[in-house]
Amino acid sequence: MSTNHKNTTTSGVLSAPKAKAPFERTTIERRELRPDDILIDIKFSGICHSDIHCAYDEWGGGIFPIVPGHEIAGIVAAVGPKVTKFAVGDHVGVGCFVDSCGECEYCQSGEEQFCTKGVISTYNSLDYEGNPTYGGYSQKIVVKEDFVVRIPDALGLDVAAPLLCAGITTYSPLKHWNIGSGKKVAIVGVGGLGHVAVQFAHAMGAEVTALSQSMKKKDEAIKLGADHYYATSDPATFKELAGRFDLILNTVSANLDVDAYLSMLRVDGTLVNVGAPAEADKYHVFSLIMGRRSIAGSLVGGIRETQEMLDFAAKHGIAPMIETIRAEQINEAYDRVLRSDVRYRFVIDISTM
Amino acid sequence: MSTNHKNTTTSGVLSAPKAKAPFERTTIERRELRPDDILIDIKFSGICHSDIHCAYDEWGGGIFPIVPGHEIAGIVAAVGPKVTKFAVGDHVGVGCFVDSCGECEYCQSGEEQFCTKGVISTYNSLDYEGNPTYGGYSQKIVVKEDFVVRIPDALGLDVAAPLLCAGITTYSPLKHWNIGSGKKVAIVGVGGLGHVAVQFAHAMGAEVTALSQSMKKKDEAIKLGADHYYATSDPATFKELAGRFDLILNTVSANLDVDAYLSMLRVDGTLVNVGAPAEADKYHVFSLIMGRRSIAGSLVGGIRETQEMLDFAAKHGIAPMIETIRAEQINEAYDRVLRSDVRYRFVIDISTM
Repeated sequence: MSTNHKNTTTSGVLSAPKAKAPFERTTIERRELRPDDILIDIKFSGICHSDIHCAYDEWGGGIFPIVPGHEIAGIVAAVGPKVTKFAVGDHVGVGCFVDSCGECEYCQSGEEQFCTKGVISTYNSLDYEGNPTYGGYSQKIVVKEDFVVRIPDALGLDVAAPLLCAGITTYSPLKHWNIGSGKKVAIVGVGGLGHVAVQFAHAMGAEVTALSQSMKKKDEAIKLGADHYYATSDPATFKELAGRFDLILNTVSANLDVDAYLSMLRVDGTLVNVGAPAEADKYHVFSLIMGRRSIAGSLVGGIRETQEMLDFAAKHGIAPMIETIRAEQINEAYDRVLRSDVRYRFVIDISTM
Repeated sequence: MSTNHKNTTTSGVLSAPKAKAPFERTTIERRELRPDDILIDIKFSGICHSDIHCAYDEWGGGIFPIVPGHEIAGIVAAVGPKVTKFAVGDHVGVGCFVDSCGECEYCQSGEEQFCTKGVISTYNSLDYEGNPTYGGYSQKIVVKEDFVVRIPDALGLDVAAPLLCAGITTYSPLKHWNIGSGKKVAIVGVGGLGHVAVQFAHAMGAEVTALSQSMKKKDEAIKLGADHYYATSDPATFKELAGRFDLILNTVSANLDVDAYLSMLRVDGTLVNVGAPAEADKYHVFSLIMGRRSIAGSLVGGIRETQEMLDFAAKHGIAPMIETIRAEQINEAYDRVLRSDVRYRFVIDISTM
């Protein structure tokens, strides 16, 4: 335990000491509260596939040791003197980023994820003072209040956690591309993101089609709100659904047959990707020209929209399906995520840390 | 000369008898006027790169002999009894298609190019009766009045011809993606399409950057209305223009380094392709996610928008730069198009046929 800094807070964490090494239990010091900071007792932290990419350094540039976790739900334990929006005892969440410049046009318009100075990620990032950030696999975290959202009472903290990344990542593009009544939406992949996306798209009033490799998840997808379900391993699916969708939201981080997916779009339809495979995707320009179709990407969502998403989830009874694990199960959980052996999101019970 | 059909009209044409064979001069019969048909004396016919793709059967499915040409300007010579919009002597144009179902949602909304029954191309297509269509390398053509547009007096028929494809192909995406004052637009390629696109984007009020392989066309691009000009052969161009554009309109039918072009887009920017290389393009999904960027395609424009484009061109003094050729120069002209040796569009003077 380090006590170098006066009034810092010691927090137990799960830490990846280097790429692909097993997690270790250790402690870090959370910074002394600044006037607009909040100290959060973390209760649950979701496991996102990108945690694994970072802990395994698959995207490069890893700042080790890494404490992953950007699906954070907890309770306010202390507030700085200038904090106005939160009080001790509030249920709060922290998502993928913890600071931004606050001044650029994107910060001003509430889309901090596109901050021109560069948004500060919740972990594996250096903050504006040059200190590494550590995420939610941790007992405590200190975050500037502008980057904290309120978790409505109707949402349990355990199911709220994954909404901070999986939720906003799928909610934001559905809103941005104006999904609602009368729109036909396909959700590609019924996994951590997809099973939440199906619920959001359904609650927004769209006609929802779930597309999964096999028929295995059909019953669950229908229960979650899908109106239709097709297996993408069957070539007949692409023929039957030709020209069908206004939006295809691809939650799968593997390379797709992009032309085949584009063929399922209506005129002016869009294929939106929220997961990124390491290898390049390929498409024929004709697939876009015929039907004025688009391929796009979407990156989480801003703080304001994250709050809107949580309120929407609470109002419509939307929640991820989770499997709660103990801290010592973290390495095993990573292996199971890589085998797609989870329905549909692991959440670490931080009380076991 | 064939005289099998009563009241048909014989027309001299330039005909490609088979793939890559030199053009021959021959005659065809244009159909007897139906009540809503117009007989046009063609005065000028532009040469589009896609004419070459078809005459060389590079896209497959060629219906030979082929009479290309979908940039047609001429004078009304006769009208059917139910024609209401045109009279003998009117200056008129015909673009890329000559019929559509008229009933589907796209026809009803004036976007016939997306007709669900399948739009009938001006040449190398079978009409709804199963007869091949023959295009504008021809003295005369018979077209249903709903697929004929009026050429304003301010536009010469020679410069109007290329607007019927090169013009609408670039005008339509600029309008669709809301280009106007305050928007930053890049036009990739200063050729048959690009040199018209620069003029349209400028007249719409955008800040226009022309992107060409070398610096060779700089002076002309600036005269046409470009505010800036950069060579894409210089890697510094991509660094300097990072995050700059709302829209990049790519008029080049070659494979691009898509990721490099995407990096020049602002948040929510779009790379729109109007030309299609035969080989697939590649991109990394990260290039789209970071900045919620899009790759899209656009296909000519509907009849209503084509009329709007011609009126806009007349109002703003927009015209393609053309080189007029005689009919017997057609084979040589094709070779020169393939060498990019034209500034910027060939137009056949049909009086030389």
